[in-house]
Amino acid sequence: MNLVLLEPDELDADGTATLTGGRAIHLLKVLRVDPGSTVRVGVVDGPSGVGEVVSTVDGKVTLQCRLEQPAAERPEVDLLLALPRPKVLKRLWAQLAALGVGRILLTNAARVERDYFATHVIEPSTWRPLLLEGLQQARDTRLPEVTVHRRFRLLVEDELDELVGDADRVVAHPAGDDGVARVVSGFSRRRVLLAVGPEGGWTPFELALLERHRFVAAAMGPRTLRTDTACIALLSLAHDALRTRQAGTGSRL
Amino acid sequence: MNLVLLEPDELDADGTATLTGGRAIHLLKVLRVDPGSTVRVGVVDGPSGVGEVVSTVDGKVTLQCRLEQPAAERPEVDLLLALPRPKVLKRLWAQLAALGVGRILLTNAARVERDYFATHVIEPSTWRPLLLEGLQQARDTRLPEVTVHRRFRLLVEDELDELVGDADRVVAHPAGDDGVARVVSGFSRRRVLLAVGPEGGWTPFELALLERHRFVAAAMGPRTLRTDTACIALLSLAHDALRTRQAGTGSRL
Repeated sequence: MNLVLLEPDELDADGTATLTGGRAIHLLKVLRVDPGSTVRVGVVDGPSGVGEVVSTVDGKVTLQCRLEQPAAERPEVDLLLALPRPKVLKRLWAQLAALGVGRILLTNAARVERDYFATHVIEPSTWRPLLLEGLQQARDTRLPEVTVHRRFRLLVEDELDELVGDADRVVAHPAGDDGVARVVSGFSRRRVLLAVGPEGGWTPFELALLERHRFVAAAMGPRTLRTDTACIALLSLAHDALRTRQAGTGSRL
Repeated sequence: MNLVLLEPDELDADGTATLTGGRAIHLLKVLRVDPGSTVRVGVVDGPSGVGEVVSTVDGKVTLQCRLEQPAAERPEVDLLLALPRPKVLKRLWAQLAALGVGRILLTNAARVERDYFATHVIEPSTWRPLLLEGLQQARDTRLPEVTVHRRFRLLVEDELDELVGDADRVVAHPAGDDGVARVVSGFSRRRVLLAVGPEGGWTPFELALLERHRFVAAAMGPRTLRTDTACIALLSLAHDALRTRQAGTGSRL
């Protein structure tokens, strides 16, 4: 835990917050804080700064917070993900938040098993703590927005423009001519939406629908990856390409 | 499972192999093979090809194999990894093999907890099946070579040249001037060795030792990642940069 995340209602008007449970245990047992110690703190979707431990009594930790840094920008990459196996998705939530993703759109697709939608893994009570864990790892306060879409065609045809607006769009697919990094480097908009299909792949109909709606196919090499590995790889490549592009732009100024 | 991997001694002289256990269950229950079905097969560190199911009796599956493709080249990326928490390493093995890595050198470092070396996660009986699982996912037959090094300085000063020979070397570090993809793109040798430190980072002494031994620091962005996420991200970036470099070289010929 590289940042202690507070819910907005945990912060009192005088800037103090008293933690119990997992975060208090981590502060006491792993970081071994004492009164006077300082830790990084942040508020979910809000500012961040420094918290000074003012007391550690009965397993509770009280912090006096100075939150002087405004909330960071939302990460520039969004993810459209065909709902993976519950076990895979459960492993993935924290890592997605750690890598940085603005929105996670979970969608149905022809090769998604219907019963995946019945699991608790897509309930906010499951994913919210896991996303917060990832944010605390990566020192971010911006909680990804998560939506679940049971009708793929409706999502792509009618809802996507409103949800992700002005983003360049990539679909990971073995038939792509170029790699993901090269495709993203060639984009010009500020945001990128990455689409990752089910383990069995998109159907030809789904792929054609995506391509009609501005998704560019990009390859990820000859190896078939598990959905979670593929998502991490793709997000890393997209973020790296965006950073490199920005650095390049900066050096020309 | 996108490839059925056989141990060399499972293959009879006439090209048949009879599977029991996990692979047989997967073939019967998930892939639902019948006599006449064909599946991709490969031999560990050997050739690959097609297996035709000739019988499915008593939960055993017998395949008649034609292995016409020679063993693939060893992946061009090696990994020097400070031993992570056992839970993290356990999750990582299959993903490393799936992404493609020639060698995995597990090393001690100042911020590695001593008791990590006592776990079964670094025993071949744990990692071999997990690496095979990753190879079967990625359709590769080349088992990464794994070695465990309890003395970091000895490894870097005396053993590394022999173990990884003529490889360009990168150490992931926030202070790197350039991103990993850019650093790897600028390399000229055929192989790349990536070094990933412990969760608490390399010490200044360790980092200086690595830099004296040809490791170039490369940054991975502002977010602090868990070791497993970082390894997947790094391997993806390195492979992508090598592929892009090769594609670029090809087009100039």
